[in-house]
Amino acid sequence: MTGEERQERSSLVFSTSVRPPRLSAEQYVKGVLENSRSVLAQAITLVESNSPQHMKLAQDVLKQLLPHTGRSIRVGITGVPGAGKSTFIEALGTMLCERGHRVAVLAVDPSSPVTRGSILGDKTRMEQLSRNPRAFIRPSATGGTLGGVNRKTRETILLCEAAGFDVILVETVGVGQSETTVRSMVDFFLLMMLTGGGDELQGIKKGVIEIADALLINKADGENKQRAMVAKAEYNRVLHYLQPATAGWQTQAYTCSALTGEGIAEIWGVVENFRDELTRSGGLAARRQAQSRDWLMSMTEDYLRSRFFGHSGVASKLPEVEAAVLRGELSATAAAQLLIETYEQKRDESEWGE
Amino acid sequence: MTGEERQERSSLVFSTSVRPPRLSAEQYVKGVLENSRSVLAQAITLVESNSPQHMKLAQDVLKQLLPHTGRSIRVGITGVPGAGKSTFIEALGTMLCERGHRVAVLAVDPSSPVTRGSILGDKTRMEQLSRNPRAFIRPSATGGTLGGVNRKTRETILLCEAAGFDVILVETVGVGQSETTVRSMVDFFLLMMLTGGGDELQGIKKGVIEIADALLINKADGENKQRAMVAKAEYNRVLHYLQPATAGWQTQAYTCSALTGEGIAEIWGVVENFRDELTRSGGLAARRQAQSRDWLMSMTEDYLRSRFFGHSGVASKLPEVEAAVLRGELSATAAAQLLIETYEQKRDESEWGE
Repeated sequence: MTGEERQERSSLVFSTSVRPPRLSAEQYVKGVLENSRSVLAQAITLVESNSPQHMKLAQDVLKQLLPHTGRSIRVGITGVPGAGKSTFIEALGTMLCERGHRVAVLAVDPSSPVTRGSILGDKTRMEQLSRNPRAFIRPSATGGTLGGVNRKTRETILLCEAAGFDVILVETVGVGQSETTVRSMVDFFLLMMLTGGGDELQGIKKGVIEIADALLINKADGENKQRAMVAKAEYNRVLHYLQPATAGWQTQAYTCSALTGEGIAEIWGVVENFRDELTRSGGLAARRQAQSRDWLMSMTEDYLRSRFFGHSGVASKLPEVEAAVLRGELSATAAAQLLIETYEQKRDESEWGE
Repeated sequence: MTGEERQERSSLVFSTSVRPPRLSAEQYVKGVLENSRSVLAQAITLVESNSPQHMKLAQDVLKQLLPHTGRSIRVGITGVPGAGKSTFIEALGTMLCERGHRVAVLAVDPSSPVTRGSILGDKTRMEQLSRNPRAFIRPSATGGTLGGVNRKTRETILLCEAAGFDVILVETVGVGQSETTVRSMVDFFLLMMLTGGGDELQGIKKGVIEIADALLINKADGENKQRAMVAKAEYNRVLHYLQPATAGWQTQAYTCSALTGEGIAEIWGVVENFRDELTRSGGLAARRQAQSRDWLMSMTEDYLRSRFFGHSGVASKLPEVEAAVLRGELSATAAAQLLIETYEQKRDESEWGE
């Protein structure tokens, strides 16, 4: 984990926002289960708060709602800038609503503080879908730490499921580690691409293609359609050599046009096949259990990290110690020992053996 | 990080072996700098010990040797079983010795307790090289935790450099996370492959091809040579689509025959080009600094993890808490909070906000 990520994640447990919750736990629970949009929106605001009393109330609400969660297909969507994620989500979400699904669209965007609005804040981006009574579009969780966005988005998914949404689409703008974060909370991860051969793959962050359950080449319309078919074939050749993101599932490339709607039904068919096959094999349940376990561990470690690096003695020593290691004057082992002894505020040899 | 890795790494700081060190710090330092093999071997045994007094002495020795370290090219070597790693290392190492280099061969094998011997323990695997006075072959660090192997191998590299070895070859048997561990301590990472098209790529662990600076198809001799050339072309087509493991360096596929020696000089030429180009660009220095920084952080986090999960209250609560999360009765956030409160042995709301 890089220093930047650690910094991002270690501040998980800190916050400044303290707004008094408007409802009681029972009111939140009742309202969410009755799919009251205003209560759902308030409940999401509650889980997005990091203030101690809000967190306690939020956990009380979540505990009561947990039995009503998990009955949705969770789909993560990412893509290179200009791949047309929002027009695709608009087209897909509208089709799913027409089919009787109830669709929640969430966004993960650690880069956009809520004050600056968020990637989904601008409703005009999904005008049609945002007016659909069967759809719920929630702007990105408060920007800032990815760890915070992680928790908030996961708990928002649970709230939406409890409110009866059976399709959850989680969009990421691909900032920082957001793809990995979204991959860790969804069943199916979709990577949207553009045509132009393999070259724009260079524009995709390292490792992202390896965590995708499907590659979708959008804008396969007009004179671009032929190029899209060529790109699809090239991507499939590459995918043949990579380990699939999901055991027992071969990631493949597909084309669509959010403009004409061509291929939208087909890609959703792929998601449904994925869900059916992995439900049969038990892979889906196993993935969700592993996700919960890993999330529990990462939250615990975020906390330990923030406690350690927030320790005044450690914080003041770290720069000089790190510099000494980089100058080759101190071994990393001795440096770690030094920081730990500072943290423990004692020189206890037994820390280092049994 | 998966539970398994965490388990592996979190026990970094524990040990039971306590053997009295035979020499003083000054004797270790003097002997290593004079390239006394027996002292070097004893110094490596010292850094491999986790007993408190040994670690203190080892760190004292390392501190004095640090100014004499870093002047080698560190090459990691991994590959699918049967790729012929040891015959390749024998051929490469022998050639380098003939060229006047001094070659240290280390192994990372968390799976082999020293009692069972190690992957390099069986000298017959590198008979010729092991008899070469310019070569030093060190069996794998004591099996067990990868975190421990990580520290021991890194410090063994430093000792070998202080003893004047200018080529360090670190072999990994590809167990657990060992490729990533080795990648994090070497300059150049070599992945050995076999012919047979892309199919045996499926045999390579996820992500390993993405961290390689070169793919080497061994056994390109006799009737296999043509197949090797075909495989090389296929791999290069795939590599074109992947982000290079090292910025500013294009990972490519090469062929060789450890049997006939064909291609051995060429692949070393690739390593030398890599070192020259990245020395010029500053990328090599930057990588080594980032490796030291990340190592310092990961050792610190290993320690925090081992303290937390070793805490009697946490250890006894963890199974039930984890089970409750997996049954969907407890949110991961509430579960983490519960474990942390157990660890802190208090219910301090301020832990959860500011």
